[in-house]
Amino acid sequence: MTAPALHPDLAPVAGLVGTWSGTGTGSYPTIDDFAYVEELTFTHVGKPFLAMVQRTRHAEAGTPMHQEMGYLRVPSPGVAELVVAQPTGLAELGVGTVEPGELVVRTDVQATPSAKEVSVVERRFSWDGDELRYELAMTAVGHPLTFHLAAVLHRMPPPS
Amino acid sequence: MTAPALHPDLAPVAGLVGTWSGTGTGSYPTIDDFAYVEELTFTHVGKPFLAMVQRTRHAEAGTPMHQEMGYLRVPSPGVAELVVAQPTGLAELGVGTVEPGELVVRTDVQATPSAKEVSVVERRFSWDGDELRYELAMTAVGHPLTFHLAAVLHRMPPPS
Repeated sequence: MTAPALHPDLAPVAGLVGTWSGTGTGSYPTIDDFAYVEELTFTHVGKPFLAMVQRTRHAEAGTPMHQEMGYLRVPSPGVAELVVAQPTGLAELGVGTVEPGELVVRTDVQATPSAKEVSVVERRFSWDGDELRYELAMTAVGHPLTFHLAAVLHRMPPPS
Repeated sequence: MTAPALHPDLAPVAGLVGTWSGTGTGSYPTIDDFAYVEELTFTHVGKPFLAMVQRTRHAEAGTPMHQEMGYLRVPSPGVAELVVAQPTGLAELGVGTVEPGELVVRTDVQATPSAKEVSVVERRFSWDGDELRYELAMTAVGHPLTFHLAAVLHRMPPPS
């Protein structure tokens, strides 16, 4: 099947489409520092959204750590909308800014009764060719917006 | 790699794990009736959640129609928590009931500025062996909770 053309709304994030892998580190005032390996994919079907799927594993043990899935839209030039579902029971929705090579979105977070209280997540993605970096900060369990994650990823070759 | 054991919290939804395909029909007061083919997967990594990914295509043309991704938790016996991201810019979160073979969850929906206004989605899944049925109703664009989708799916054999 031929891949559909990218929807023109998505031109500013065309450079994100693909599969990325690399390593990251995390910290938060309430937990020990940690390191992880990550695979992050952005896919499209010709419609005006990218699907985002992230999976991380423990850097040494290889055991699954985090995952999340969501969708990115660019409804008007410079504007990014992001919705994300997290398996800990969080649903995120936010509006931010995008230009080719940089995306910044701060989401409001709704939490299920069993989830830890997280109220705001801010993601900053920057990309250039085959390198993608992001930082994530969050407001959680009584702490103000605080650094949580940073990762450097590289583009994986398409499956042959 | 050996598949991890299912987390014990998920025993009531163990029968959902796998890939399902089949057909569905949809309607809503504001749109024409439509038919679709669907692939729905529930996967786990040994943690207390199932990841849910749904993709539908037009029944005749085969073109992509809808997709959504989310997570299901069973934090205590009989209780289901669901978070879902929709590519139209919706983030859903809800709590419902679950017993082996039946899951009912009504979510509250947050919408990005560019999304159509949807405020409540109710999903009813029922499954028995290799058959899975669901119905979905929603409160949207000024209408009360109204039938929207019904589908009958069958379990796909695992990839060989």
